[in-house]
Amino acid sequence: MNFIGSHILSVTQFDRAAIDRVFEVADRMSPYANRQKVTRVLEGCILGNMFFEPSTRTRVSFGCAFNLLGGEVRETTEIKTSALAKGESFYDTARVLSGYSDVIVMRHRIEGSVDEFASASRVPVLNGGDGSNEHPSQALLDLYTIKKELAGHGKSIDGLRIALIGDLRNGRAVHSLCRLLGLYQDVHFTLISPPELSLGPEYIAGLQAAGHEVVRSEKMHAGISHADILYVTRTQEERFPSQAEADRYKGLFRLNQSIYTEYCEPNTVIMHPLPRDSRDNANELDNDLNENPNLAIFRQTDNGVLIRMALFALILDVADQVDDTARDVNWYTAKRF
Amino acid sequence: MNFIGSHILSVTQFDRAAIDRVFEVADRMSPYANRQKVTRVLEGCILGNMFFEPSTRTRVSFGCAFNLLGGEVRETTEIKTSALAKGESFYDTARVLSGYSDVIVMRHRIEGSVDEFASASRVPVLNGGDGSNEHPSQALLDLYTIKKELAGHGKSIDGLRIALIGDLRNGRAVHSLCRLLGLYQDVHFTLISPPELSLGPEYIAGLQAAGHEVVRSEKMHAGISHADILYVTRTQEERFPSQAEADRYKGLFRLNQSIYTEYCEPNTVIMHPLPRDSRDNANELDNDLNENPNLAIFRQTDNGVLIRMALFALILDVADQVDDTARDVNWYTAKRF
Amino acid sequence: MNFIGSHILSVTQFDRAAIDRVFEVADRMSPYANRQKVTRVLEGCILGNMFFEPSTRTRVSFGCAFNLLGGEVRETTEIKTSALAKGESFYDTARVLSGYSDVIVMRHRIEGSVDEFASASRVPVLNGGDGSNEHPSQALLDLYTIKKELAGHGKSIDGLRIALIGDLRNGRAVHSLCRLLGLYQDVHFTLISPPELSLGPEYIAGLQAAGHEVVRSEKMHAGISHADILYVTRTQEERFPSQAEADRYKGLFRLNQSIYTEYCEPNTVIMHPLPRDSRDNANELDNDLNENPNLAIFRQTDNGVLIRMALFALILDVADQVDDTARDVNWYTAKRF
Repeated sequence: MNFIGSHILSVTQFDRAAIDRVFEVADRMSPYANRQKVTRVLEGCILGNMFFEPSTRTRVSFGCAFNLLGGEVRETTEIKTSALAKGESFYDTARVLSGYSDVIVMRHRIEGSVDEFASASRVPVLNGGDGSNEHPSQALLDLYTIKKELAGHGKSIDGLRIALIGDLRNGRAVHSLCRLLGLYQDVHFTLISPPELSLGPEYIAGLQAAGHEVVRSEKMHAGISHADILYVTRTQEERFPSQAEADRYKGLFRLNQSIYTEYCEPNTVIMHPLPRDSRDNANELDNDLNENPNLAIFRQTDNGVLIRMALFALILDVADQVDDTARDVNWYTAKRF
Repeated sequence: MNFIGSHILSVTQFDRAAIDRVFEVADRMSPYANRQKVTRVLEGCILGNMFFEPSTRTRVSFGCAFNLLGGEVRETTEIKTSALAKGESFYDTARVLSGYSDVIVMRHRIEGSVDEFASASRVPVLNGGDGSNEHPSQALLDLYTIKKELAGHGKSIDGLRIALIGDLRNGRAVHSLCRLLGLYQDVHFTLISPPELSLGPEYIAGLQAAGHEVVRSEKMHAGISHADILYVTRTQEERFPSQAEADRYKGLFRLNQSIYTEYCEPNTVIMHPLPRDSRDNANELDNDLNENPNLAIFRQTDNGVLIRMALFALILDVADQVDDTARDVNWYTAKRF
Repeated sequence: MNFIGSHILSVTQFDRAAIDRVFEVADRMSPYANRQKVTRVLEGCILGNMFFEPSTRTRVSFGCAFNLLGGEVRETTEIKTSALAKGESFYDTARVLSGYSDVIVMRHRIEGSVDEFASASRVPVLNGGDGSNEHPSQALLDLYTIKKELAGHGKSIDGLRIALIGDLRNGRAVHSLCRLLGLYQDVHFTLISPPELSLGPEYIAGLQAAGHEVVRSEKMHAGISHADILYVTRTQEERFPSQAEADRYKGLFRLNQSIYTEYCEPNTVIMHPLPRDSRDNANELDNDLNENPNLAIFRQTDNGVLIRMALFALILDVADQVDDTARDVNWYTAKRF
């Protein structure tokens, strides 16, 4: 895979060599994201951060990653502030907006919209999420987190045992992560969900065809007892026909510290694509896990900045220039980072 | 016209010498907008990009233009996030916001609001569009595009033959463009619209008084057959009393490649202030024109960045300093620009 | 008080020494805010400007202050664009967002929300306003304005005579300002409000316990006749159970130039936390005062930039580095500043 000038639209673009390249650059972004060093490598470069669907986390993460490389961010945050509402095609929107920036991140609720947009864009486009379809940077940061967490325990992704828990039908993060994990060797998947929310058969067939073991379960306790990683998800209520329909599935699988202590192997890592739903009727990941050192959910979002910095650096071909303009941070930086 | 420190509120401020000055500076902005060079001439300078009416295109274009000069952008995007909703006058809003930035772009749906705002502002204000009244940077970018497109064919604005098509009553872009074209010599206008949406008589009288020829037509085919420029507009549905009323006028004039081939002279340039309405019941400019090299609609929006950079540079008196801090771009830039 | 790395959540954190320190640094920010000099001391540093409640003035003021120090700003403006709407806790939001920036300003309509957020944040948090609870930077800029205005007339805060006028029950600006003024010596407070909107007894008791004189009045003319500062507020209609209920109190106390001339001592300073409600049924501060040189309301907002710059500089420990990278401004700056 050649990154320079490329669109990043789908995890299917990535093979293991490409993933390794992203992770290697992400590692090198750490001193900048951790506020030890400052680089200005993209000074004067402009990101068009085009979010036509609400998002704070992903939008700010991309914007922050670009700022950390020294670039500027122009932004939109809502469908209704857009000419799209006046009958403008994605083609036109892309032709226009790609004249305003050097690279674009786009999110839109319509599946396939970002592909359509990218095909008309004159600058590289990163998919920031198109409906329940793709969200490649999320999958990459999840995989990167798995790799780093496992490395801390002397393991690697090959041979990984992962339990995926919750709404596996609608969660695009789960879909994309499965696609990436499928590239590795001998991964053991335990899929824990109500039958109506089980992972699509095309994903399961793909994993099995690649030689991975896939076990389905409706019982969480057994499913989490022999895993390296628990990947917990919320019920994607916005994808259900009604709130009442979504509410039927909330709270079916809840992980808390006592269940963790009783059933999980030591150092089992807990992940979640966030936001976790902490309302009483959901609460898939209890707050009593917050002090558990194996709760990796905020290391995930921190890693997201590294991954997004790496993608920008590779696409814009400055990965090897980042350190050239580096200097030490001159302001107070929180030790808690 | 003295640009330094001035408000840019109306096209009526501009004479031919002022237009020439803007266009000359815009030409010099090209290496920066085309991502060949980087300048930091406005490093530390702040634009207040105050859009109290939805807009992505114009807002991002202004913001990008300011970033390309090295400045920072603070922004607002919605009327309801503003103290204006709590009974604050434009006077107060202007006094306050002008303490936060070096220059302000303002858009608001109320005609005359930007003038009122500017009269209280302590820093220069650019009109980013006030209702159906004025949008001077749009008119300047349209005229700049006409000049550049014609120059490619060995022609100039003096002697231009232009056909204006669609909702000529409500389109502020058309109004402002007519005012600017009126400053030139011997322009031939063909006005193609339904009678109810014809150009206001005050505009027509003004053009005729300045010695220009104005022909009105309800037949598009004849009207476009002897023109250098076709300026197509959408039905400004948001200015109609009801959607049903607006829908009556949609789709009356549609240009596509086969009509273009049959009726237009070679190299007739197609322009549109955008967004074009690509819905089936409108589609005033068909997508089958997208590969037509004379479709200039995206060169218009690209030129908008140059014009806005030029206005900022002139108002803030840095036009002659831009090149002082220039350096080559060090990241990948799309060849498609 | 140690500023470095601290959260700024409440005026109760401040003693007189801390206030003096903020004001001293604010004074030194003046050449930068007045666009005489440029500093890049926070180049590469990122502010997360997280406004989960509508605001233009305060949000842009914080963002501008950070830009003036050379830093970058990432922003959110609405509750509905946030994962908070999907059941995410403040704890999670804080853990995530604090991985994206070096310092955070947060506003949210729920009282105490910013404290909760700060307790989970890994970076310093400034309270940008939590419901009717606290808005410490507003109180500091008000006090700073009082000090500067009085100094122009050879007076100091000790011994100040201040009349607070309007909705004293609901205005958080009034509450916080009273807390800060309570730290000084021998302040004379005249509280002018309808009985239902009078200042809470806990505030009055606190001021009296500290030795200050507090007089309550329902008659404005007498109350303003022996004051150094008039602090006028609007009816905080969004805090009332209904619009009709709020409307009962609008327009009860109106100050205009003729009343000012008839009743006030020379050089009595007029302040207002803004926005002032200029609608006919309210109009607590008439526009005919706009040319009165003692109307300090826009000096207040200008001072807000200085105070916010000072808070950022102190928290991030760069107050003594600001001048190191200073250079003269190279663009046109309005003399009206």
